[in-house]
Amino acid sequence: MGLLDDKGPVLVLAPHPDDEVLGVGGTMARLAEAGAEVHVAIVTTGRAPRFSPEQAQGVRAEAEAAHRALGVAQTHFLDCPAAELGEMAHADLNAAIGGLVRAVDPVTVFAPHPGDIHLDHQLCFLSALVAARPHQHHYPRRVLAYETLSETNWNAPYLTPAFLPNLFVDISATLDRKLDAFALFASQQREPPHERSVAALRALATLRGATVHRAAAEAFVAIRLVE
Amino acid sequence: MGLLDDKGPVLVLAPHPDDEVLGVGGTMARLAEAGAEVHVAIVTTGRAPRFSPEQAQGVRAEAEAAHRALGVAQTHFLDCPAAELGEMAHADLNAAIGGLVRAVDPVTVFAPHPGDIHLDHQLCFLSALVAARPHQHHYPRRVLAYETLSETNWNAPYLTPAFLPNLFVDISATLDRKLDAFALFASQQREPPHERSVAALRALATLRGATVHRAAAEAFVAIRLVE
Amino acid sequence: MGLLDDKGPVLVLAPHPDDEVLGVGGTMARLAEAGAEVHVAIVTTGRAPRFSPEQAQGVRAEAEAAHRALGVAQTHFLDCPAAELGEMAHADLNAAIGGLVRAVDPVTVFAPHPGDIHLDHQLCFLSALVAARPHQHHYPRRVLAYETLSETNWNAPYLTPAFLPNLFVDISATLDRKLDAFALFASQQREPPHERSVAALRALATLRGATVHRAAAEAFVAIRLVE
Amino acid sequence: MGLLDDKGPVLVLAPHPDDEVLGVGGTMARLAEAGAEVHVAIVTTGRAPRFSPEQAQGVRAEAEAAHRALGVAQTHFLDCPAAELGEMAHADLNAAIGGLVRAVDPVTVFAPHPGDIHLDHQLCFLSALVAARPHQHHYPRRVLAYETLSETNWNAPYLTPAFLPNLFVDISATLDRKLDAFALFASQQREPPHERSVAALRALATLRGATVHRAAAEAFVAIRLVE
Amino acid sequence: MGLLDDKGPVLVLAPHPDDEVLGVGGTMARLAEAGAEVHVAIVTTGRAPRFSPEQAQGVRAEAEAAHRALGVAQTHFLDCPAAELGEMAHADLNAAIGGLVRAVDPVTVFAPHPGDIHLDHQLCFLSALVAARPHQHHYPRRVLAYETLSETNWNAPYLTPAFLPNLFVDISATLDRKLDAFALFASQQREPPHERSVAALRALATLRGATVHRAAAEAFVAIRLVE
Amino acid sequence: MGLLDDKGPVLVLAPHPDDEVLGVGGTMARLAEAGAEVHVAIVTTGRAPRFSPEQAQGVRAEAEAAHRALGVAQTHFLDCPAAELGEMAHADLNAAIGGLVRAVDPVTVFAPHPGDIHLDHQLCFLSALVAARPHQHHYPRRVLAYETLSETNWNAPYLTPAFLPNLFVDISATLDRKLDAFALFASQQREPPHERSVAALRALATLRGATVHRAAAEAFVAIRLVE
Repeated sequence: MGLLDDKGPVLVLAPHPDDEVLGVGGTMARLAEAGAEVHVAIVTTGRAPRFSPEQAQGVRAEAEAAHRALGVAQTHFLDCPAAELGEMAHADLNAAIGGLVRAVDPVTVFAPHPGDIHLDHQLCFLSALVAARPHQHHYPRRVLAYETLSETNWNAPYLTPAFLPNLFVDISATLDRKLDAFALFASQQREPPHERSVAALRALATLRGATVHRAAAEAFVAIRLVE
Repeated sequence: MGLLDDKGPVLVLAPHPDDEVLGVGGTMARLAEAGAEVHVAIVTTGRAPRFSPEQAQGVRAEAEAAHRALGVAQTHFLDCPAAELGEMAHADLNAAIGGLVRAVDPVTVFAPHPGDIHLDHQLCFLSALVAARPHQHHYPRRVLAYETLSETNWNAPYLTPAFLPNLFVDISATLDRKLDAFALFASQQREPPHERSVAALRALATLRGATVHRAAAEAFVAIRLVE
Repeated sequence: MGLLDDKGPVLVLAPHPDDEVLGVGGTMARLAEAGAEVHVAIVTTGRAPRFSPEQAQGVRAEAEAAHRALGVAQTHFLDCPAAELGEMAHADLNAAIGGLVRAVDPVTVFAPHPGDIHLDHQLCFLSALVAARPHQHHYPRRVLAYETLSETNWNAPYLTPAFLPNLFVDISATLDRKLDAFALFASQQREPPHERSVAALRALATLRGATVHRAAAEAFVAIRLVE
Repeated sequence: MGLLDDKGPVLVLAPHPDDEVLGVGGTMARLAEAGAEVHVAIVTTGRAPRFSPEQAQGVRAEAEAAHRALGVAQTHFLDCPAAELGEMAHADLNAAIGGLVRAVDPVTVFAPHPGDIHLDHQLCFLSALVAARPHQHHYPRRVLAYETLSETNWNAPYLTPAFLPNLFVDISATLDRKLDAFALFASQQREPPHERSVAALRALATLRGATVHRAAAEAFVAIRLVE
Repeated sequence: MGLLDDKGPVLVLAPHPDDEVLGVGGTMARLAEAGAEVHVAIVTTGRAPRFSPEQAQGVRAEAEAAHRALGVAQTHFLDCPAAELGEMAHADLNAAIGGLVRAVDPVTVFAPHPGDIHLDHQLCFLSALVAARPHQHHYPRRVLAYETLSETNWNAPYLTPAFLPNLFVDISATLDRKLDAFALFASQQREPPHERSVAALRALATLRGATVHRAAAEAFVAIRLVE
Repeated sequence: MGLLDDKGPVLVLAPHPDDEVLGVGGTMARLAEAGAEVHVAIVTTGRAPRFSPEQAQGVRAEAEAAHRALGVAQTHFLDCPAAELGEMAHADLNAAIGGLVRAVDPVTVFAPHPGDIHLDHQLCFLSALVAARPHQHHYPRRVLAYETLSETNWNAPYLTPAFLPNLFVDISATLDRKLDAFALFASQQREPPHERSVAALRALATLRGATVHRAAAEAFVAIRLVE
């Protein structure tokens, strides 16, 4: 079954709030419209002294509003320490993400790209892959990596894993909802020409779309698809 | 729509007869059973002095028998010179394959792997990609590369494009038909432990299957999927 | 000396007219403004039966107009057969490009990307590299590969050379001139969402710019820089 | 001297018990038969609460039985914490593996593949490489990476280091002993079609063998060979 | 502006004392001569029990003498624990290096290669990249990775990031000063044929030079250059 | 059996005379001393108008003298057109090299690196690999790629196949003979700092040696080793 007509649950893993919208916002909206139950897991929460409780609470509220706008069925806050996943025991991160995968039982998992510059992204990807291992008959039949503006393009070309998309989703009909959802993240968006601006996000959608002759698209790397 | 429930035409490009069965045999059988119109294009024909007319005719008959066994709807013989695609004008090969893609109008194209050791395979892949370019609204929405025993594993590791599959098709139900179809290629199959033996083909299917917890699978590299 | 304050001649190699504007248009305008002598070599000319003489003449006139708009000092037409570079003797293409490099004596060479889907691009890149070999004290001190919409993104991800830029040129001040110059190629540009549209070109410039916090940029792969 | 006629000690590093048999079982049997002193180092031990003492003791007994069956001269238990190597100080893991390399003084080191999905495998590989550095006249003259079913094929294609073998060992004569040894790991083996089943292991040996026209083989990536 | 005529500050990050001289010694001397303010950051300090205070103090004195000989303007000792960067919180390393980058405000950053065998090198590279992110208008316009004898060539070919230089600096005029500066590191240099010997360092300079037809050169990988 | 104690014939494929000495000279001398029958195949001959008959004859005489000095048993001149292998039918080049491989029946084949900048080198490599396919029980058990100064380092980093050696041969005892043999190629060697100078060749040997703690070494990429 195709990504968009498979009616099973979908899980989007976001190391930090807004990653899921930057990378998968338009696709989540299409999936929700098509009747899929879309889950988002925000893996980390900002903590003192790096972040105040108010900041953490604020961005959580922004995420919830953005998810509502996109039709997300449920948001899970795994509450791991932001910018400190490397200090958390790897097995514990595996357990947190693995437990959620078992609970949600998704047919499709969207994970951040292992070549992103943020160590949190790299570690989430590895734990997602561990959680989705095909070690029994039933497991997520699609694992896809998404790109994140202000993370994916800032790592070292040719020396870190490259994001070269091979799966495109037409988001011509949902781009506006994606941009609106991102606009709800007042604390995270930046003015152009910052990569995390509405203008850059729109340019990316236009370019990814043009590559497959669509008005707008989101692009992914297929990690494992099973038919 | 998924590879297997999309009812549109499918095109399998085989540089030489039997490549299509080695790489896509079980999937073709599943597709045909699911109601898809499966087309095979045999790109080259053996010619004197390398091959006698009898040899060329013999392997063509074998291909037709094998295709019948797998439910292939139509076999196209493009009749380019075998082992000599490098001597043919590249634009002519593009035209031959491009014309067929326009005529069949497939939703899925299976092409040989560009990292195969045979130059004919490398050139067919490039022409397939040119033919499938998304330069207008309508084009094949799936392009996949398949592996070929006795070609893919004999190239230079790390120095030529690697075959690292990311899309698996369960062929537990059609493996026997695949092996039977391959057995019809009396002129092409070899005794074990040759890579082009039934034993090696079965081992490959078992291994690719085990990677995704299935009794047998065929594995592909996703070049471009559009949803 | 930096790319933009080096006053020596610059050579941009374009397999087909418009590649040079798609990939290097904004940078050429900046270089010309900064006082550099910018040369463009159009390597191929369309020929019958693929192209009529009128078509070939028409696109040549478009190129000349576009180059004037960008401040190009001289356009060289090498007149090799379009879409047929693979049929031309490799040593002859080396000789044609090598002769021009000796005549222009550039400090910087811009070549098409070897991972582009068009064989002409791949062959031009190789010949450019041969022409720029550091086999004596004097040679082009900068060799850069540029990206071409409708070529670079349509090849096979992970299986052909990746375009992962590591050198960015701010074209905020010249983007409009680039887009105007491209608009002069009436025969080559397409309507959105085609990759070879003004909209896609603008999106690419915005995205490449955002990656380095500029309003617009062109991006390149550094092949060899010598200081 | 060749891998198999070099009579010096051999060291196989296994992050967890059974890795060494899955990847090197047939080769260890050939080496032992040829007169080499084969050492295995089991790097980790399962600990509470993840593993009970009984489990840890049980798998250790299985390993010892399997090693006897293969002619292993000595098994070393380094007793690092399983699934927690990332929490151990990297220098301590280097010291543990480095000390053993100095004590055993092997001519050949087999290490797990750095592209395996398990972080323990990745870290063992790096420490093995550190221990084998050629920083003085005498050091292990061969370092090879082996593949592990249920680890190597479950990582992310194209985004993590690829296992593309370039050194093959004919194990036609020892495959049965390898499979028997693996069968002694009652706690680790799984039913087909799990990757860690006897059927998958046999298919892998058949396929790796067919690639080099042998009835069965084990395949490795040569990291450094010095003659 | 070019690397060598840009008069802004330069920052060389060395995980351990002597890395900066091995990789960037001749270029630092050229930069200092050309009037640039060259800063070196020694990221780690050896600590008990691995290193005695006398050792740590001794190598620090060697570094200071070598830096004087090369015209370094200022040496910064970040005092992180040597061989233990993996045990330090990643965010703390980011903060230490990020703080220095903000204080020095370099136009060019030289970082160790992420493919070096030493984990400290890999982590310093990542933190350097984080510190140099183009998330605002002003940031280091050049980020380059350098090679380190006894680190870069001892990692795993094809399985870890490759050092394939694309930016060369002619050090014909400063090679002797580089070798003299390295000779001041009595505690770090080794007799030939060790990689960390004067003979090996001279051979590397000769070879890197020959690649670009110069008597001696240092070679780098361009990570990001912005013009 | 190891490379150096295997007494079977060895075949070194050189696209042009002197490649074999640049890449394999010291190893050939060691092999000959150890009793192996060393064959060299010079694949191409320079032809008018690019080369005069005198030039072609001259370099042939140089090659024969150099080979005598290294203990080469037999030199084969395949007489294909230099700098024009791309114009020769690929199947004919396969036949020429394949025929020689059958006649010499080598245990080890040394082929030029597929990432060399010269198309002749790339094509020779592919044909060597085709000739050495393991499609029957008996075939060359070792296939190695060698590096060639003035070819290997002048291709495009990260965009063409990388030469990252994993097999080193100690040539401390034969380096002088290698350099003397290369000095016999009066028509091919260049003054320093050209890459094809004695000084660069010595620096390469010193560096490759230092990597494995030897006074001098030649380095190779293992393509396929079968034990």
